[in-house]
Amino acid sequence: MSAAETHLDIPALMARMGAAARTAATTMAAAPSAAKDAALRALARRLREAGPALQAANQRDLEAARAAGLAEPMVDRLKLTPAVIATVAEGCEQIAAMPDPIGEITGVKRRPSGISVGQMRVPLGVFGMIYESRPNVTIEAASLALKSGNACILRGGSEALHSNLALAALVHAALQEAGLPATAVQLVPTTDRAAVGALITMPEYVDVIIPRGGKGLIERISAEAQVPVIKHLDGNCHTYVDAEVDLEMAVKVTDNAKTQKYSPCNATESLLVHAAQAAAFLPRIGDVFMAKGVEMRCCARAAALLGPRPRVHRASEADWGCEYLAPIISIKVVDSLDEAITHINRHGSHHTDAILTTNHPNAMRFLREVDSASVMVNASTRFADGFEYGLGAEIGISTDKFHARGPVGLEGLTSMKWVVLGQGEVRG
Amino acid sequence: MSAAETHLDIPALMARMGAAARTAATTMAAAPSAAKDAALRALARRLREAGPALQAANQRDLEAARAAGLAEPMVDRLKLTPAVIATVAEGCEQIAAMPDPIGEITGVKRRPSGISVGQMRVPLGVFGMIYESRPNVTIEAASLALKSGNACILRGGSEALHSNLALAALVHAALQEAGLPATAVQLVPTTDRAAVGALITMPEYVDVIIPRGGKGLIERISAEAQVPVIKHLDGNCHTYVDAEVDLEMAVKVTDNAKTQKYSPCNATESLLVHAAQAAAFLPRIGDVFMAKGVEMRCCARAAALLGPRPRVHRASEADWGCEYLAPIISIKVVDSLDEAITHINRHGSHHTDAILTTNHPNAMRFLREVDSASVMVNASTRFADGFEYGLGAEIGISTDKFHARGPVGLEGLTSMKWVVLGQGEVRG
Repeated sequence: MSAAETHLDIPALMARMGAAARTAATTMAAAPSAAKDAALRALARRLREAGPALQAANQRDLEAARAAGLAEPMVDRLKLTPAVIATVAEGCEQIAAMPDPIGEITGVKRRPSGISVGQMRVPLGVFGMIYESRPNVTIEAASLALKSGNACILRGGSEALHSNLALAALVHAALQEAGLPATAVQLVPTTDRAAVGALITMPEYVDVIIPRGGKGLIERISAEAQVPVIKHLDGNCHTYVDAEVDLEMAVKVTDNAKTQKYSPCNATESLLVHAAQAAAFLPRIGDVFMAKGVEMRCCARAAALLGPRPRVHRASEADWGCEYLAPIISIKVVDSLDEAITHINRHGSHHTDAILTTNHPNAMRFLREVDSASVMVNASTRFADGFEYGLGAEIGISTDKFHARGPVGLEGLTSMKWVVLGQGEVRG
Repeated sequence: MSAAETHLDIPALMARMGAAARTAATTMAAAPSAAKDAALRALARRLREAGPALQAANQRDLEAARAAGLAEPMVDRLKLTPAVIATVAEGCEQIAAMPDPIGEITGVKRRPSGISVGQMRVPLGVFGMIYESRPNVTIEAASLALKSGNACILRGGSEALHSNLALAALVHAALQEAGLPATAVQLVPTTDRAAVGALITMPEYVDVIIPRGGKGLIERISAEAQVPVIKHLDGNCHTYVDAEVDLEMAVKVTDNAKTQKYSPCNATESLLVHAAQAAAFLPRIGDVFMAKGVEMRCCARAAALLGPRPRVHRASEADWGCEYLAPIISIKVVDSLDEAITHINRHGSHHTDAILTTNHPNAMRFLREVDSASVMVNASTRFADGFEYGLGAEIGISTDKFHARGPVGLEGLTSMKWVVLGQGEVRG
């Protein structure tokens, strides 16, 4: 915290920002699509033009991070490289090119009383977002807020403050260039943690909170927030290899689901294999995992089929519930589809689970009965992602069932209101 | 509380009910439409056949209520008359005849990666409902839970306990007749308030709470619940008479919106009139309100145009925010559509608001810019109701934006999960 910041009255600052966001939200809700898209394109242009200035701000954060002894992977996430800037600028243009979700009217039906009833998509209002130290998230959140007609208050990671302030200045200039209020996107200009406490307890100004980061942070915010929270907790994803399956495909997809990247929440953490395929499948996937250095934590039957290898260990009961985010996978042999579904619903985190099968009824049962945000047939769990699903960018992935489930894009930031069109009808 | 009940271990009882509901929810989520509809039709039949037994249980509640000195309108709400039973039985059959919302797959689109992505409608899981002493609500909630594939735990008003237990027994018999678990619909068998406290703090067993009743109760439950709450707070509804309007229609609709019934949340509590119509419209609606005994609380201009009448008074600032639920209306003259929209968004409760106009652009602006769960053109605000909207029964009316807004029917008790159909695709 700088000397100047110590004099900030945080509750007053947050209330001022909240009131400004509420006012801006009214303007944004009624803003023409053309103005919103012009702002997004202006933002893309300004991001590309601002290169050196952005680099300078980013450099301050990087130096401070290194001076503070931040681990190199954390420093990496802070970097606004030309490639990162090109990607977020392109993202803004992609969102500009998408249809405006706001104002869409659906399902209008004439009722026996004579009135016509339908629903209109409208913005939620103001969202608050609390996120890790990746400055590109600032632009992703701003662009989704803008397109969906919401206002937002952003609270990025402390280590990225200077980068985020520089990015926010570009957003403000782009909004004003398009005749929209700069206060539609506000960045909390302090690293004081009291700002988070205030942001999540202002129901008069903030309609929903989206926290991103570690599970502990998200649980604390959910417990203390006085408004709804779109939250993402665990991603303990399963791939289940059914009794009837194309083995070649099963090896390829299981490999990708586990090893394409270890850190994402949609990476497979647990492999279930039907007993009828276990003897054929497990040694093959075992070779792949051995070659890539993936540790296998196995039930007794899986361990026997994999044979004695240095990376094969016995799983403990706790392994079935584990989100490793690492080159580790739990492996279990099951005797039926029912056992697989029951295991997933009991030990999984209701994030993303896939069945690999050629049996149609089994595929349909898996889709219906596995209670997860994303259920897949013959595809890698790594596809559970807003961009892969065609949502444009994503503001997060929800592990809740309420309001938004799974990847949350523009629609997750909206709500449907009822529209009634009459010709003077009255109720009898 | 009876002597037997004082020995109940409430937390243990509620945890048992919660665990049973969670198990039943899994069965209900996968239940065939035919079984759910058979249960609903069996329930209708059993309700009609159970006449005398139901009357006897209801009689116990009525006598206790009268002995406790309950006001006659409250006693009236407790009554399970043959007409009330006929209505709820018919409601069950209507819900049986509706399409099953569960399993609906929408918006499946092929993505560039080769996977197809869509969404499937699934139940929320378990809902808890806390409601006033109207036993018919027990059947409405049970039938909506059943059709939507959810399990529910119902906590009705204490005064209706015997009626509710008798109704719940019919629900259990109907479920079992159709091969479904009786535990899909459980009634809390005690009037101990600790049961409510337990019900709203079991996130492991209950996914959402729906409270119905006074504003104080709902605010307390929302503050203390550890799961999402679908809540209904105020209904301060407006009717706005625009500058261009069919006066005859405006008088008829405004009259209906205010006087057809005074107690519902969708009755109009505030009338806004454009200055260009005020001199023509106000004396006419004033005559109607005088004849029906409606007190008018007016701004200075409206009071002047209405002239000195015994029921015309000056409004205080507080009147603009009031939900009277009584033969009282606040009246204000405004100079523009903008002033009307700003007034409604500031003083209203975002429930239901109507514009009466012949001007198309004004109608469209009102629909878009008034931030309420239901926005109407040339119709009585009294239409804001699940049955009038074609939802079948309604479980409540939400004044939130999150998840469900306005009347909540079957769809409000569901959630959309993502479905991915592949042919062995992996992420690059």
